[in-house]
Amino acid sequence: MIELKSYLQNTWISGKGKAATLVNPSTEEAVATVSTEGLDFKGALAYARETGGKNLRKMNFKERGEMVKAMSQAIHAHRDELIKLAIMNGGNTRSDAKFDIDGASGTLAAYAELAATLGDKSHLVDEAGIQLGRSARLFGVHIWVPREGVAVHVNAFNFPAWGLAEKAAVALLAGVPVVTKPATSTGVVAHRIVEILVEGKMLPEGALSFVAGSAGDLLDHVGGQDMLAFTGAGSTGAMLRGGKSAREHSIRVNVEADSLNAAVLGPDADEDGELTNLFIGDVVRDMTQKTGQKCTAIRRIYVPKEKVEAVIEKLKERLSDVKVGDPSHESVTMGPVATKQQLDDVRAGIGKLAACSKIVHGGVDPIEPLGGTKGKGFFVAPTLLHCAAPSPSDAVHNHEVFGPVATIMPYDGSAKDAARLVASGGGGLVSSIYADDKSFVKEAVLAIAPFHGRVTIGSTKIVGQSVPPGTVLPQLVHGGPGRAGSGEELGGKRGLAFYMQRTAIQGDRALIESFL
Amino acid sequence: MIELKSYLQNTWISGKGKAATLVNPSTEEAVATVSTEGLDFKGALAYARETGGKNLRKMNFKERGEMVKAMSQAIHAHRDELIKLAIMNGGNTRSDAKFDIDGASGTLAAYAELAATLGDKSHLVDEAGIQLGRSARLFGVHIWVPREGVAVHVNAFNFPAWGLAEKAAVALLAGVPVVTKPATSTGVVAHRIVEILVEGKMLPEGALSFVAGSAGDLLDHVGGQDMLAFTGAGSTGAMLRGGKSAREHSIRVNVEADSLNAAVLGPDADEDGELTNLFIGDVVRDMTQKTGQKCTAIRRIYVPKEKVEAVIEKLKERLSDVKVGDPSHESVTMGPVATKQQLDDVRAGIGKLAACSKIVHGGVDPIEPLGGTKGKGFFVAPTLLHCAAPSPSDAVHNHEVFGPVATIMPYDGSAKDAARLVASGGGGLVSSIYADDKSFVKEAVLAIAPFHGRVTIGSTKIVGQSVPPGTVLPQLVHGGPGRAGSGEELGGKRGLAFYMQRTAIQGDRALIESFL
Repeated sequence: MIELKSYLQNTWISGKGKAATLVNPSTEEAVATVSTEGLDFKGALAYARETGGKNLRKMNFKERGEMVKAMSQAIHAHRDELIKLAIMNGGNTRSDAKFDIDGASGTLAAYAELAATLGDKSHLVDEAGIQLGRSARLFGVHIWVPREGVAVHVNAFNFPAWGLAEKAAVALLAGVPVVTKPATSTGVVAHRIVEILVEGKMLPEGALSFVAGSAGDLLDHVGGQDMLAFTGAGSTGAMLRGGKSAREHSIRVNVEADSLNAAVLGPDADEDGELTNLFIGDVVRDMTQKTGQKCTAIRRIYVPKEKVEAVIEKLKERLSDVKVGDPSHESVTMGPVATKQQLDDVRAGIGKLAACSKIVHGGVDPIEPLGGTKGKGFFVAPTLLHCAAPSPSDAVHNHEVFGPVATIMPYDGSAKDAARLVASGGGGLVSSIYADDKSFVKEAVLAIAPFHGRVTIGSTKIVGQSVPPGTVLPQLVHGGPGRAGSGEELGGKRGLAFYMQRTAIQGDRALIESFL
Repeated sequence: MIELKSYLQNTWISGKGKAATLVNPSTEEAVATVSTEGLDFKGALAYARETGGKNLRKMNFKERGEMVKAMSQAIHAHRDELIKLAIMNGGNTRSDAKFDIDGASGTLAAYAELAATLGDKSHLVDEAGIQLGRSARLFGVHIWVPREGVAVHVNAFNFPAWGLAEKAAVALLAGVPVVTKPATSTGVVAHRIVEILVEGKMLPEGALSFVAGSAGDLLDHVGGQDMLAFTGAGSTGAMLRGGKSAREHSIRVNVEADSLNAAVLGPDADEDGELTNLFIGDVVRDMTQKTGQKCTAIRRIYVPKEKVEAVIEKLKERLSDVKVGDPSHESVTMGPVATKQQLDDVRAGIGKLAACSKIVHGGVDPIEPLGGTKGKGFFVAPTLLHCAAPSPSDAVHNHEVFGPVATIMPYDGSAKDAARLVASGGGGLVSSIYADDKSFVKEAVLAIAPFHGRVTIGSTKIVGQSVPPGTVLPQLVHGGPGRAGSGEELGGKRGLAFYMQRTAIQGDRALIESFL
């Protein structure tokens, strides 16, 4: 049994009082304990802001990029160890664990590459400056400088490695210290990553702090230069956004929350063609990868109505091949969900969806896990529902079931009808269109764009080289409007904006240009 | 007595019940009534979203730019009439009124000019797209599309014309319909502007709605594609940001709030030189223009300690020339504050500041207004305080007095000390540095930049052509972190971002480029 400590003010420290227990979700065996009771979060934030912030602001982009690169390499060097921990504490298959851990090192590496293009300055210039008056002398330009606060990162249970690393990469490159808190239930991987980074001394003092367990009064001590980035349930996001400190000090808050991501099969896709195959493969991957516990997973499947039956059959066939069980066994292709609470929520969620749909594969019944013990572990079958007459007010357009669950629905084959149904999800992280027909793609993409942070297009010409919609790329923004929390992360350089202040500088051109 | 109606769902409409009364702040005579009781704000928002949004999205940037230009011209054509209303209901001098009204037409004109550069598309491409995989075919690009919601604009009492126009210019150009609500107390000018625009039929149906009076339940009906932009007191901003709908639907909220803007005189400024003159002129203008009721007005004046006495004398001399009274009289150079509440707040605020400062000019005593009636009107003397030993915890660094009031303080002559004091204001819209010394300017500007949306530099070479810090320019961002509300408005094209969704599009390069 591991005791996960917090890393605050340059010191590993345990909380007092009753610890929470982390389990292996396949076996329900206890694997670690955490407590943050009595920890001085106010002091920890002040230390990060003062010591960490000063240390990072002394470095330029190039130096910070080297730091981020070293972090990437350190995580990669411990890949096998981290995979084992993810299988044990996260219920990940080996493939799921790689997706998380390689995502972490890959995002850090991508930001290291970006840093190399930003040079040896510590501020950025935002586009060319402009003449403000009649003479060329009066000049205005916008610069980006690191905010002098701390970035508080509150991550979700599904990506303990990637969640930590993708947020930290951006903040640290911007020159802002990080206090990161993984979800308690799956915190083992994140804890080990921070241990690795601390042991390797690859960050300056105060640049990275770690909270193992409950956030306690952490958020009561954020101030006007601080930033809060949260990934998780929409209800928690709303609560954090409305917190007293967040409101009263106008804290920047970024939320990635619920998202009813959709996939649309275009009317031009041949039933047995490559495009339909790509579509089927992406849907099944999204339903089962990480046991469907991805904020970007496809939850809604729209198919021209005359093809619904055929697509259901194809999906059922593929879902029947999924081997659910303890992922420490090699033949298992889908593990349990992460916690008992998740299992209860998924089962309740399937019940909600079933009010407007019927279950065509899987369902809520307990299943016997491969390589596991009957009655133990948080297992659920991959579950496909069919909603024959979807309406925007149905649960399928309003309730996210965070597990291996999706609903297939008909549309009339027009881009307009597809867009209307997709948009009724109320704002999402990503949706996808599978079609080759240019006018269908154009109309559908532009109509759903206002409701999404990202739209992917699957087409015959990129079969074999496409990146599935559920994979977040560091070069593209991640986040979406409305239900998805109205946030933006990543997107290459765009991601830095959240951690920096854009300031207009106005005055004599020569004087300003002397220090840009 | 005018009855100000609201303009909702393409109709001028009055509220029921007891009306609020608007007065002339110089005479306290009633000039107008308003009521929004019983108005259907839910229906009004839905109409704006559906009819207004659709109509605007049918137009491209060029067409929207022509619309915005026509709005600018219409306001300009009614300039004299609007100036009279501003004098009557706002307590503006003629010069104050022009600042507001020409600011309105000027900002609309600037956005019309910007539109001409955006072409005949209705979406924008965000920088060059990038290759995502090993082959050039897999491609990602970000586009900006209009959000399909409504922009709710809640403006402050001090700029009824500019506040309406600068927010509307950006939203309308982005393709988003506006529901605009001026502060009730000074709503006459905004009401007349909307009348002019409606009479001139220069906007499509549903593109602009107007709320005369209380916002009632307006904000209970905002949704996930809507935006709320507020200018006013920080406490109200915090309340709006934390509203149930705002939190639960992740509404985009932009707040411009309190700001303790500072002006720093550099150690190299000759006491009787041009630079010191520029500084004195800007400080006095900011203290008295619009009776100090500008969110960008200089509230804190930092001067090298050995020059404090001399600067106080210069400021006193200039402030003695200010003629306070009813601005309908030509010789008056400063009018009353806008309301009885403002007068009470300004007097109480001077009291707060006096806890750490002494009054060296003006003060809280009633004054006899030029051309007015003794005992009538909301008049206050321009008031200068001197805080001899400023500390970050003093009221002068924490409490905004929204009137013709500023506090002069010493610093040790170093950029570091100046920046420390300026930053202790907790985040502001704009601060200014008056110096020619390059290294002082560089150090001071970069050190205060994280705490501001804009920094202006006054230097000898731009005397005579500089734009004072209190003037907001449409090309530069307006907004600031922390106490200032953490918002961003204007800034040319940058301002459009608030009203648009940035969406990553990922897929086959040729397919995507066919519709960009």
